[in-house]
Amino acid sequence: MRYLELRSAAGVIRAIKRLQVRGAPWIGVSAAYGLAAEAQRLKDKDLRRGLRRAARSLRAARPTAVNLSWAVERMLRSIEDPTLTPGRLRKALFAEARCIEAEERRRSFSIARYGAGLIRDGYHIITICNTGVLAAPGLGTALGVIFRAHRAGKRLKVYVCETRPLLQGARLTTFELRRAGIPFVLIPDSAAATVIERCDMVLVGADRIALNGDTANKVGTRMLAVLARAAKKPFYVAAPSSSFDPRADSGSDIVIEERAGEEVRRFGRCVVVPSAVPVFNPAFDITPARFITGIITESGVIKPPFVKSIRRLLFS
Amino acid sequence: MRYLELRSAAGVIRAIKRLQVRGAPWIGVSAAYGLAAEAQRLKDKDLRRGLRRAARSLRAARPTAVNLSWAVERMLRSIEDPTLTPGRLRKALFAEARCIEAEERRRSFSIARYGAGLIRDGYHIITICNTGVLAAPGLGTALGVIFRAHRAGKRLKVYVCETRPLLQGARLTTFELRRAGIPFVLIPDSAAATVIERCDMVLVGADRIALNGDTANKVGTRMLAVLARAAKKPFYVAAPSSSFDPRADSGSDIVIEERAGEEVRRFGRCVVVPSAVPVFNPAFDITPARFITGIITESGVIKPPFVKSIRRLLFS
Repeated sequence: MRYLELRSAAGVIRAIKRLQVRGAPWIGVSAAYGLAAEAQRLKDKDLRRGLRRAARSLRAARPTAVNLSWAVERMLRSIEDPTLTPGRLRKALFAEARCIEAEERRRSFSIARYGAGLIRDGYHIITICNTGVLAAPGLGTALGVIFRAHRAGKRLKVYVCETRPLLQGARLTTFELRRAGIPFVLIPDSAAATVIERCDMVLVGADRIALNGDTANKVGTRMLAVLARAAKKPFYVAAPSSSFDPRADSGSDIVIEERAGEEVRRFGRCVVVPSAVPVFNPAFDITPARFITGIITESGVIKPPFVKSIRRLLFS
Repeated sequence: MRYLELRSAAGVIRAIKRLQVRGAPWIGVSAAYGLAAEAQRLKDKDLRRGLRRAARSLRAARPTAVNLSWAVERMLRSIEDPTLTPGRLRKALFAEARCIEAEERRRSFSIARYGAGLIRDGYHIITICNTGVLAAPGLGTALGVIFRAHRAGKRLKVYVCETRPLLQGARLTTFELRRAGIPFVLIPDSAAATVIERCDMVLVGADRIALNGDTANKVGTRMLAVLARAAKKPFYVAAPSSSFDPRADSGSDIVIEERAGEEVRRFGRCVVVPSAVPVFNPAFDITPARFITGIITESGVIKPPFVKSIRRLLFS
């Protein structure tokens, strides 16, 4: 693990694009701090124009996680508040970024508490990608649920999908589980079809959830959902309300980021196939709502019909 | 591509274990030649005892592909024939190995012909692992079907699962498809859940097929089968009769090889996770017969109920 000290919006954008910061909630929080830091660099006369420009670029850094545009929009409320002097705006932006982080932290603890209630002693759980403290302030999302259940004394075993191409499961999730002392086994993603038979639950995070419950998350999540249905296992998503997109009616309104083919063609410094080999490398996929047993949020576990329960979560 | 010149059973065993020779039919053929080569090395007085010992070791080299024990058993018939003098036995073993290879080659062409009849112009096909000329004499199995359909002028697009952990799809199948001039796209295995929606067919090989149709093949095959069912797409297996196991009533009679965790922990020289990370690395999985639309064999495409159609294939 390495700490990066970023002092500009451009630095944060670079870190987001390179996945040095990742996980939908942390992306949102980092973008907020990126704008606060940018405000320190800009001269008074360029302040609001420069911040608007930075906000646009930050928002475009990655397209799928809705927490990013949600956080940028929150920051824009202060930027567009004409009553704030430049000095006050700078302070207001830092205060707002800290506030967003604190909110996400509280949401994370709340998600963990509600989610842990679904987990029984002895459960085997399969997950994908990283959804722990490296993905969200506090405890994380799906992994936060697991941490909380573990601390409550439940004996667990976690099957971790390695999560090709960038191996966040292998690199980040096994790191977090080892540190927490939770038993786990790393598997190639394609072994999930075998392993699901031994599992009691699928538990994943989310990058964006539409109003009908369709959920964008790391590529491979949809595979787990289809396998869970065939094996008659419950499939849960853990996500804060900041990952719901009130502008997306369904999964078809969600943009799926396609990343460079080199991520699949290479493996670190190792070349697998020549660069002439055509690759399809979607970073995310859409899990249709009908495959989802429930969504664990900071306000409780919401259940189908999601069209109703999600509106209640967001608008009441 | 590199050619290995192997002059002993031990050399062939090593090549099989290291996957320098792979693909169920080629494993069987190589084992037959391994015994023929071993016969050249043994002295007359040690000949039969040494060949029996080599046969046992060859058979144990890899547990899942039934072609291996099938080919070794064929060779043992000559070894146990008391009428053959040592000189004649040596010749008989080479003749038998060549015969097994020629049979597999003919089966491959026949599979390709029957299978191509299932493929229409413009089809998008998803496959896993390698099932071409690097897997079976002749044209291969599943990939042989694709070669034949392509040569017949059908426009195809093949989605190739990279096939973690050893990436036979990325390394071998893309190589064969490029050489054949067939359009293809390489995908991470977990993207299959997205890609299957654009496909007209799943087409895979087999390492062992039980009498009820349950099929052992490269890990990830079961995932494709479950995804195909959910997406209402046909799922076909292509395999010669030598991949059917008359001693296995169902998938539960098939031993699934577990390979070293290092295959998942590392990638070539690149270390992904420390060696302390526990890994589950099954080389194969079982696709239950109920997910299989048909099995393309050298005698035609057999359909459910497989309990009847497989007995007809093998015993009539």
